[in-house]
Amino acid sequence: MSIDQANQSAFERMTSARPILTAVDVAGKVIPDLGERMLLHAGPPIGWDRMSGPLKGAVIGAILYEGWAEDEARAAAMAEGGEVTFEPCHHHQAVGPMAGVISPSMAVYVLENLTHGNRAFSNFNEGYGKVLRYGAYSTEVLDKLRWMNEQMAPVLAAALAESEGLDIRALLAEALHMGDEGHNRNKAGSLLFLKLLAPLVAKVAQDKATEERILQFVGDNALSVLNPVMAACKAMADAAHGVEGSTLVTTMARNGTDFGIRVSGLGDDWFTAPAPTPDGLYFSGFSAADANPDIGDSTITETAGIGAFAMAAAPAIVTFVSGTPRDAVTATLEMYEITTAEHPHFTIPTLDFRGTPTGIDLRKVVELTITPRINTGIAHREAGVGQVGAGLVRPPKEVFEQALIAYAERYEL
Amino acid sequence: MSIDQANQSAFERMTSARPILTAVDVAGKVIPDLGERMLLHAGPPIGWDRMSGPLKGAVIGAILYEGWAEDEARAAAMAEGGEVTFEPCHHHQAVGPMAGVISPSMAVYVLENLTHGNRAFSNFNEGYGKVLRYGAYSTEVLDKLRWMNEQMAPVLAAALAESEGLDIRALLAEALHMGDEGHNRNKAGSLLFLKLLAPLVAKVAQDKATEERILQFVGDNALSVLNPVMAACKAMADAAHGVEGSTLVTTMARNGTDFGIRVSGLGDDWFTAPAPTPDGLYFSGFSAADANPDIGDSTITETAGIGAFAMAAAPAIVTFVSGTPRDAVTATLEMYEITTAEHPHFTIPTLDFRGTPTGIDLRKVVELTITPRINTGIAHREAGVGQVGAGLVRPPKEVFEQALIAYAERYEL
Repeated sequence: MSIDQANQSAFERMTSARPILTAVDVAGKVIPDLGERMLLHAGPPIGWDRMSGPLKGAVIGAILYEGWAEDEARAAAMAEGGEVTFEPCHHHQAVGPMAGVISPSMAVYVLENLTHGNRAFSNFNEGYGKVLRYGAYSTEVLDKLRWMNEQMAPVLAAALAESEGLDIRALLAEALHMGDEGHNRNKAGSLLFLKLLAPLVAKVAQDKATEERILQFVGDNALSVLNPVMAACKAMADAAHGVEGSTLVTTMARNGTDFGIRVSGLGDDWFTAPAPTPDGLYFSGFSAADANPDIGDSTITETAGIGAFAMAAAPAIVTFVSGTPRDAVTATLEMYEITTAEHPHFTIPTLDFRGTPTGIDLRKVVELTITPRINTGIAHREAGVGQVGAGLVRPPKEVFEQALIAYAERYEL
Repeated sequence: MSIDQANQSAFERMTSARPILTAVDVAGKVIPDLGERMLLHAGPPIGWDRMSGPLKGAVIGAILYEGWAEDEARAAAMAEGGEVTFEPCHHHQAVGPMAGVISPSMAVYVLENLTHGNRAFSNFNEGYGKVLRYGAYSTEVLDKLRWMNEQMAPVLAAALAESEGLDIRALLAEALHMGDEGHNRNKAGSLLFLKLLAPLVAKVAQDKATEERILQFVGDNALSVLNPVMAACKAMADAAHGVEGSTLVTTMARNGTDFGIRVSGLGDDWFTAPAPTPDGLYFSGFSAADANPDIGDSTITETAGIGAFAMAAAPAIVTFVSGTPRDAVTATLEMYEITTAEHPHFTIPTLDFRGTPTGIDLRKVVELTITPRINTGIAHREAGVGQVGAGLVRPPKEVFEQALIAYAERYEL
């Protein structure tokens, strides 16, 4: 089989995957091999010593949330002393935005790929403001996590049990016709999510105040659906992974220190380089000097052909990430240069319903020196602060060069 | 004051109007001068003898719904015999899509223009399929009307009473950034409507089954918000009406037989001509031969600077009304030629956030021979059938010529 054929096969697996949100459950129960004192995190593997501020903050917050330590100092000491194990979400069929920390008692969305049978998981989205995923861990942050996991999660679990599952690929296809790109702009998708959930929640909720708060929270958070969308993209990307001879990129992820990729035909090896810092727009009172290097598993969206790759569908996003509507079109057009084909389900109205550029081909990235574009949030570099802006970033080209060399060695080219 | 100054004044009144959805109430209680055996209808004044099939069907349905007659034959005889009075919605601060029939016991949305104090009303949207507004009046149609008016309306009334009112102008501004044009495409707006209503409904609903059905119905109907949007546009247009010397068009409406307009500086006179038949896409099993001439008050949206005027914001609509995404941009660009200025609140991302073309200037329409563009649904020509498609239409140029002659006479030019 030629490389092109292998890539076509991987592309077809990625785009024929049909991830359905079937359940909400507890991470420790459903995520494979999630140990008792283990925390999952975004990006490639990393130890406490090399973690950036926001990831350290989220780790401290998760330790406090789990009750493994009573205060910040003890939590940090546990992390430093090896009493907690750290593994990437990506090693456990999971993804998490920004710090991406998933601890055993957190609720997770369970996605099932109807076409190929694999599953994927993501945690709940906390909304804007001071949140764990940006490295904040104040009482307010932990209280909201408790409400989400202890009050909202059981209701959503019961609601989903009443449904036949929510088709997240169909939801995304519709959201791309409503000005979303599926990564930094999930306004329409989150409302479609609310539309699907609301009658189910009304049916199963026992307590009116909780029900009201859930409907308010899911509706007001324009990123409500980001986490199920990321898990859906993970299910698609995992379906494309492991195709012998394929140069398709199946993972792009950052832990706040390193940017890493994995490739369909290169097994589970990561190719990493220092994570760059995004260019973007900063919230009032913050500037580029406050920005942490790029962080999060949310680049799984670009890996699956949406996010910055579908930016032409989302011209209004430029008010959030910088640039002009024309730049948004240019971003998508450029990504056709480095991808395998056009997505059969995700289409862009303003480009005459052309499919989104999907399936990053390692060879094209290196040959054309065009790295993938990524839309992203920007975290403060220090633990405990939170989000400071949003913008655009590209992976370091070195990771693709390393991967291509590894490919040449592995396949004796 | 020059004509330009008068138009600028009317434009500023139209675009500074801020319509808030404050209540749901019973038409007979809140709509001014709505008589006991009176039916309001879309478009300019018309008697039973000249009514088209879908309007006759809706009249029969409303008489049956009110219980004024027990069967179709008796209802038609009442209408024919003058036992029911017909007046335009527009004469009662109201608007209704398609047949636009509002009867005294129907529930209506109440919009209040915070800026100028005027109010506007619209009935509830019934969704797709067999519905009164397209002239269907089977038991199924009347049962749904009863559920909406007797079960849903009291809950929405209580929900709105718990709120500070819903800002429909703000909702529209957001929906235009989410692929809506506010007339034929209200997908995003209806979901924003659901988002605002859902927590309120959860708070006030007493019966879980009703609550679940309301949330399902509002969420599934991509036109849920059309009627409040139309009333909001009516409140804006009415605010711009009555400016001495202004050539701004403040009403465009069709009753299925005639197309009529009214002009800010020309009092309450209608200028009418036979309504044309839309060009469009037909549902399976129907063709242009089934189409009724243009019908409905929903052109109030184009009158207020959205709908076909904002079509560049809604490229995905072409799958519903025909054409290409480029045509959608062209439609908006052309409307800048015949309007007074750009809307300060309604902007179009793909046109670099340019304001929508707003305030149709009678003089420009006649001088350039460019009539306004309208997106519309298409009704079957016979009573009792329903919607057969959706498409594009323009008013007859004669109505603008008549109005300009009347203007010249009135102002002795």
